Amino acid sequence: MSSTKVLPFLELPIVLAPIAGPGTVELTAAACNAGAFGFLACAYRTPAQIRDDIARLRELTGKPFGVNLFVEPPLPHVDPAVLSQAYERLRPYHEELGVELQATPPLPPDHYAMQVEAVLEARPAVFSFIFGVPDAVTLQRFKSAGIYTMGTATTVDEATALARADVDIVCAQGSEAGGHRGTFIGDAQSAAIGTLALVPQVADAVDVPVIAAGGIIDGRGIVAVLALGAIAAQCGTAFLRATEASTTPAYRTALTRARARDTVLTSAFSGRLARGIANRFTTEMAREDRQAPYPFQNALTRQLRTSSASQGKADFMSLWAGQAFPLGRGASAAEIIGEMMQQARAALDDATLRLR
Amino acid sequence: MSSTKVLPFLELPIVLAPIAGPGTVELTAAACNAGAFGFLACAYRTPAQIRDDIARLRELTGKPFGVNLFVEPPLPHVDPAVLSQAYERLRPYHEELGVELQATPPLPPDHYAMQVEAVLEARPAVFSFIFGVPDAVTLQRFKSAGIYTMGTATTVDEATALARADVDIVCAQGSEAGGHRGTFIGDAQSAAIGTLALVPQVADAVDVPVIAAGGIIDGRGIVAVLALGAIAAQCGTAFLRATEASTTPAYRTALTRARARDTVLTSAFSGRLARGIANRFTTEMAREDRQAPYPFQNALTRQLRTSSASQGKADFMSLWAGQAFPLGRGASAAEIIGEMMQQARAALDDATLRLR
Repeated sequence: MSSTKVLPFLELPIVLAPIAGPGTVELTAAACNAGAFGFLACAYRTPAQIRDDIARLRELTGKPFGVNLFVEPPLPHVDPAVLSQAYERLRPYHEELGVELQATPPLPPDHYAMQVEAVLEARPAVFSFIFGVPDAVTLQRFKSAGIYTMGTATTVDEATALARADVDIVCAQGSEAGGHRGTFIGDAQSAAIGTLALVPQVADAVDVPVIAAGGIIDGRGIVAVLALGAIAAQCGTAFLRATEASTTPAYRTALTRARARDTVLTSAFSGRLARGIANRFTTEMAREDRQAPYPFQNALTRQLRTSSASQGKADFMSLWAGQAFPLGRGASAAEIIGEMMQQARAALDDATLRLR
Repeated sequence: MSSTKVLPFLELPIVLAPIAGPGTVELTAAACNAGAFGFLACAYRTPAQIRDDIARLRELTGKPFGVNLFVEPPLPHVDPAVLSQAYERLRPYHEELGVELQATPPLPPDHYAMQVEAVLEARPAVFSFIFGVPDAVTLQRFKSAGIYTMGTATTVDEATALARADVDIVCAQGSEAGGHRGTFIGDAQSAAIGTLALVPQVADAVDVPVIAAGGIIDGRGIVAVLALGAIAAQCGTAFLRATEASTTPAYRTALTRARARDTVLTSAFSGRLARGIANRFTTEMAREDRQAPYPFQNALTRQLRTSSASQGKADFMSLWAGQAFPLGRGASAAEIIGEMMQQARAALDDATLRLR
């Protein structure tokens, strides 16, 4: 069945992943205008920013779009000694950059609840989320508002948990994916299953449409995941070098110089496992990783990441990237999407010839 | 271009991977007779066994087949203290099973050279290898004998090293793959790149045909890797439950009960990193892994693995499996291959509909 028949908002089988950091309102709008379905990453935005940014997005595109949030559990209790050790571990890096490390509280207690209200009010076509399943009441409110819900699964167990909660779409995130691992049941390291292995298992396990993420950077990957049972490919790394992305020069340079094997899974930046290009910070923290849990570690490293970026040093930046990043290129989102579709048609022809 | 045009011995775009252990002459013959291209794993066979088994294979099939060896460097020098620690670490397990741990030398010094002679003499259609690149003289002897050579790459650097050595075919092994990681340049853990991300990068980097391995267990995966740029899919895990495989009952049970996230990368069995279903041995060794390098560790655990298997206990067996293993099924090799092709045609139709 065609993807547009399953989900009316899908024009092409390409979804722009929510990209925290380099993702901009302009990038989401450009992707939507080029026929992809664009997400706006709102996890790190305040409710007021969510309202303003979605209003601005609507000025730039008349197409449907999606919004992504982190499902935030109540702040965990953290031993002050752990926080203090994490703080001390990070202090020398701040001194090196000449900035002050401030131990600010990571998030207001009602942050996530207020974000949800802002998203509900803004009525995007899709509300996608990661790190868990929203409670039944919240999910029902989105459904009643006519907003599709889409959860992120890294294992079959997580996909079935999402389907049981009556979520409309499952995003199956393979181990190649850049950025945070969505794992919410069990240990994230053991849930690093390759996209090629994960997608058909998830497609067999749930009745809802599956969107594949992880390692898909061009038309070849799109056809691959459509054959595996997905109705669309969610791509983030493919757009990191887009002209509309706010990816810093040092980050762009890293994306052109490193090799696929240079990405690592690290929790040093945020306290949660994520894939990015290895740098001095991930390497040194892997040797001695006294760190705080999410979201405390994330708050503790924020100044470090932004100062490192503004000083043009990649050493302490989170260089999130999926394992296919060397195939990415610098161009407008519309050019990237156009080329993806052209290459997808060619890849389909290749597969057809090779199979027969 | 169709796969048969590129490599005349390929009838269908399906390759039976060399499977040490459960792989049998009967399985290779059955796969060949069903139209796949079958490999026989000969790394653990003596030169005499190689001759006998290939003769028997020729009695069972008139189709072309391939033979696989490990490229064995000269035995490394190992500190006797390391060997002794590895020995002591394994002793309690042997006592528990009631068998004696014998510290036998792992391999005769000319083992690999003699294996190469036996394979050259037997003239299979393809000589495939893993863990490195044979020397130029050896490769030239295979070429002169009209035998295709095929090397295993886990990174782009390894693929280009193989192409530079004038190897005919590159097998791109993604991180989903069961059994040993083929990495021969740098650390194997960092070279765990998902098949979806690896195959197009390798296809772009080399001019020779690419065969994809890792996570491909049914027709959907076959179409996926054909779209990614491979001319065929090499499948091992898909045949572990085949009736012609010598997979033990305890191993078959593990394959039906575990989940995808239960596989781990471990070097505890052989000294080299490999993917298999986690069991007591991999878990306990991960906590405290005093072990010897390959091939010493492999020799030290041989008795443990075979005794554990013969006693029907999966605790100390190497349960090699790729991350797609839950989609495998028990049937004859011919039935598995027939279903793969049927499913591949359906997956191609699905992808076509979803793309247009």
